[in-house]
Amino acid sequence: MASMATFIVRSPSTPHPIPNTFKPQLPSRLRLVSPLRLPSAATAGAVQGRNPTPRRPGVSCSLIEPDGGRLVDLVAPEGRAREALRREAAGCPQIKLSRIDLEWVHVLSEGWASPLGGFMREAEFLQTLHFNCLRLGDGSVVNMSVPIVLAIDDAQKRAIGDLRRVALVDAQDKPVAILSNIEIYKHNKEERIARTWGTTAPGLPYVEEAITKAGNWLIGGDLEVIERIKYNDGLDQYRLSPVELREEFSRRNADAVFAFQLRNPVHNGHALLMTDTRRRLLEMGYKNPVLLLHPLGGFTKADDVPLYWRMKQHEKVLEDGVLNPETTVVAIFPSPMHYAGPTEVQWHAKSRINAGANFYIVGRDPAGMSHPIEKRDLYDADHGKKVLSMAPGLERLNILPFKVAAYDTKQKKMAFFDPSRPQDFLFISGTKMRTLAKNRENPPDGFMCPGGWKVLVEYYDSKETQEGNKFREAVPA
Amino acid sequence: MASMATFIVRSPSTPHPIPNTFKPQLPSRLRLVSPLRLPSAATAGAVQGRNPTPRRPGVSCSLIEPDGGRLVDLVAPEGRAREALRREAAGCPQIKLSRIDLEWVHVLSEGWASPLGGFMREAEFLQTLHFNCLRLGDGSVVNMSVPIVLAIDDAQKRAIGDLRRVALVDAQDKPVAILSNIEIYKHNKEERIARTWGTTAPGLPYVEEAITKAGNWLIGGDLEVIERIKYNDGLDQYRLSPVELREEFSRRNADAVFAFQLRNPVHNGHALLMTDTRRRLLEMGYKNPVLLLHPLGGFTKADDVPLYWRMKQHEKVLEDGVLNPETTVVAIFPSPMHYAGPTEVQWHAKSRINAGANFYIVGRDPAGMSHPIEKRDLYDADHGKKVLSMAPGLERLNILPFKVAAYDTKQKKMAFFDPSRPQDFLFISGTKMRTLAKNRENPPDGFMCPGGWKVLVEYYDSKETQEGNKFREAVPA
Repeated sequence: MASMATFIVRSPSTPHPIPNTFKPQLPSRLRLVSPLRLPSAATAGAVQGRNPTPRRPGVSCSLIEPDGGRLVDLVAPEGRAREALRREAAGCPQIKLSRIDLEWVHVLSEGWASPLGGFMREAEFLQTLHFNCLRLGDGSVVNMSVPIVLAIDDAQKRAIGDLRRVALVDAQDKPVAILSNIEIYKHNKEERIARTWGTTAPGLPYVEEAITKAGNWLIGGDLEVIERIKYNDGLDQYRLSPVELREEFSRRNADAVFAFQLRNPVHNGHALLMTDTRRRLLEMGYKNPVLLLHPLGGFTKADDVPLYWRMKQHEKVLEDGVLNPETTVVAIFPSPMHYAGPTEVQWHAKSRINAGANFYIVGRDPAGMSHPIEKRDLYDADHGKKVLSMAPGLERLNILPFKVAAYDTKQKKMAFFDPSRPQDFLFISGTKMRTLAKNRENPPDGFMCPGGWKVLVEYYDSKETQEGNKFREAVPA
Repeated sequence: MASMATFIVRSPSTPHPIPNTFKPQLPSRLRLVSPLRLPSAATAGAVQGRNPTPRRPGVSCSLIEPDGGRLVDLVAPEGRAREALRREAAGCPQIKLSRIDLEWVHVLSEGWASPLGGFMREAEFLQTLHFNCLRLGDGSVVNMSVPIVLAIDDAQKRAIGDLRRVALVDAQDKPVAILSNIEIYKHNKEERIARTWGTTAPGLPYVEEAITKAGNWLIGGDLEVIERIKYNDGLDQYRLSPVELREEFSRRNADAVFAFQLRNPVHNGHALLMTDTRRRLLEMGYKNPVLLLHPLGGFTKADDVPLYWRMKQHEKVLEDGVLNPETTVVAIFPSPMHYAGPTEVQWHAKSRINAGANFYIVGRDPAGMSHPIEKRDLYDADHGKKVLSMAPGLERLNILPFKVAAYDTKQKKMAFFDPSRPQDFLFISGTKMRTLAKNRENPPDGFMCPGGWKVLVEYYDSKETQEGNKFREAVPA
C-alpha cells in the first residue's frame, strides 16, 4: 500500500493531526446533515484548493494504491505556468470541446483514469477496444475499458498540419487545456461502437450524442489543463477529486472504502444493500468501513433523472436517516455515461480504485439499458458482475455482488429476496418507479423514504412545467 | 524453456538420437522434395500414430513452451478407454456437428488452443470476447481471441435437461467425442459478432456459415475425442499436430521457428519475405532457423483458393526452389477462418506458439477482408500488427512485421518496396492475381514461379468445368 505521500501530487498544506481512534471529522460540505445546502457558485469555489493531509506517522493508512502507483493530476499549478498555457493557447490551432469532451477533460485532469495522462493515442485506443486494459512500461497491467478519445474533423486535421500542440477551448472559446505531443489517427466509428457496446444498433444514447456526428479522426496527446473544471451549477462542492476523496477517507481513518456507483434515485433496497455491506465488512474485521455514495454526474440519457434532482433526493435519504452520514461520503463522479454494460462497469470500478475504494458493489445489469431496437435488455443481467470479477487490472479490487432486494409485501419493506416465498416479493423496476412518480402515485410503503419520493414527484412536476429543464444539462463552465 | 518432456503428453516411442550438429533428417512426408506426392487415404494414415522423440540429454532444446506449460491432448488412448467412450456415446444425448464444429474439435483435440480443454464455458467465452485472453489458476494469462464454442438449439437443450455429459456425432451420426461437465448458456449472437469482428454488417463469411443459423445456446465442457480427426482427402499427412511439429523441429535441431500463416497461393513476395526473415534470424545469431509454412486448412470463404489447390501450388514453389525444403516444414493448420482481422491474427499467432514457433511473421491487414457492405477494407491495414504486438499472453512471441514487397518493374522481380523510386513498383493484390489466373493471363515475370502459376490457372479451369469442386469442401471424415 502506498502512503498518502505517494499519491498526493500537489502538496501545499499544513499537516494536522488525525485522531488515533476513529472520530469523524466531517467538513460541512460532506456531512450532508439535514438539510443539505445546495450552495451558490461562490461558496462552491471553496473546494477548489487542494489541501492534502499527510498521513500522521504511526497511523496506518489502508487506502488502495492508485493504478500505476501515482495519481495523475493534469491541472497546471496556479501562477506563471497557468498564465503561460493561457498565452500559448491563444496562438495554437483550437479545438472546440463539446459538453462530453469537457467532461472527459475533467475526468482526465483529476486522475480518475490514472495513469492515463491525456486523450488516448492509437496504441491506448486499440488496447482499450481489444483488451480492456493497458500495459504499462514495467509490464504491469491496468484496467481501461472505455475509450477516452477526442474526435476532430478533416478541416481541423488540416488546420493542425504538422504542429505538435493544440489548444482545447470551451463553447465560449475560452482556453481549457493544451494537448501536446499529439497523434492523429483514424476514427473508425463502426468498430469503436461494436467493440465497446457489443452492438451497432441505432439509438445508443452516447453514440448519438458523441460519436455519430463526430469527426473521422481522433487526436491523442498529453493534456495540461489550465484550471480546474467547474460547472457553477450549485453542485461543484460535491465534485471531489480522487485526491480530495482520499484525503477525506484518511481523515475519517477508513480502513475499508466501499463504492456504490449510481445514476438513479436511492430507494430502500439500495440502502439495505449498503448498510448490509457495511455490516459484512465489520464482520470481516474492518473497524471503520466508509461508504462512497457516488452518483454519476456527466452525460446521461434523456429519461434518467437529472443530477440536480438526484442530489436533492440523496440529501433526503441521508436526512431521513436511511443512510448514516457519519460513515457515508456523498460525492459526484464526473464521468459521462456510456450505457455499455459489462464494458463500462469496469470503468466505473477502475476509476473508484483511483479514488481510494478497495471494495466495489455491483448489482444486476450494471450500466445496462434496454436494447435500442429489440424488446430485451441489451446485456445479460449477470454479465456485468462476471466480467468485472475477471477483468484484467482489477485483481486488487474486492467485488461485492448484490444480493437481489425487492419489496416484501409481508414485512412492508425492501428486503433481500427470499426464494422460499417468492409470492411475497414485488420487483419495482426503474421504469415502474419513474412512471409512478410521473403519475404522482405513491409506491408501496417502505419502498423509498417519503422525503426522497417527494423530490422525485417534484422533479416530474417541474419537468411538466418546463421549470426543471434548466437543471437538466449542467455543462462545465 | 521446457524440455520436450514437459509438453509431450502421450509418450510411447523408442528414443532415437538427435545429431549434435545440424543435419536435416526429413521424413519423406515433410521434405516436399519434388514432386510432392498427394498421398492416398491409406498412406495418409501413417501419420496418425504419435511418436514423440524425447530430448537427448545434453542437447539443448530451444522450443518455446506451450501456453499453460503443457500441450493439451484430448484424443483418448487407443484400446479400452476409446471403446468405453464409443459405448457411452451411444447412450448419451447426441449433438450433430457441422463441418466447422468438427474443425474446432480437431483444433481442440490436438492442443492448438492449449490450455483450453474443450468448448468454452461462459467464463472463457466472456474473457475471450472482452479481454482476448484467459486468466489461469496461477494468475498467469494466455491469449485467446476467438470464441471456440458449440451452439445448440432449444430442442437440444431440452433433450439434454440436467445431464452432465453429451455425445458429439458427425454428419453420419458416428460418435466423435464426449463433452462432459457441461455448462449451457445463452448465445447472444449480436454481441458475439460485434465484439469479435467490430461490425455486425451482414455478409461476414464465418457468421453466415456458422453463427446466423446456429442455435440460441452455447454448450461448453471438457472434451474427450474418440479418435484423431481425419479428412481422407489426400492431405491428412500434412495435418501435423503441435506435438508432431515440435518433434519435427527438434529432430531438425531448430533453434528458432518462424511461422508464416497463409490462406493464399505463395508468390515471390512472400518467398522473399520468408527467406529474408531467415537471413535476419541468422544475423541475430540463430544457427538453424526453420520456417513453418502453415496454410490454413479449415473453412475459408467461397472466393479463396481451396486447400487442395493451394497445397499443390505450395508444392511447386518448393519444387521450383523458391523456398528451401531443408529449412522449411509445410503443414496444414486445421482451424477455420474467421476473417476477423486484428482479433483473429492473435489466434493465428497463439496457436503457433503451441506448435513450437517463437517467431511470427505478420503482414499488411492479416486475416482481413473487404467490408461486406461498404467500399473499404474492413480493418485498418496496420491494426493487425499493432494489436498483435500489444496482445496479452503473446509477450513471449517475437513478432516480425512484414516489409512491404511489390513487383519491381526495373529488376523484374518481387522486391522490398523502395520509397525513393515508387514509380518503379507495382502492387498486385490478391484480387488482381485471381483475376489474372481466371482469365488465363500471365502475371509479370518473376511474380510467381511458373509451376505455381500453372496450378492456379489449372484450378480456375477446373472450377469452370465443375471438376475442381469436389476438392473445395474437405470435411472431417
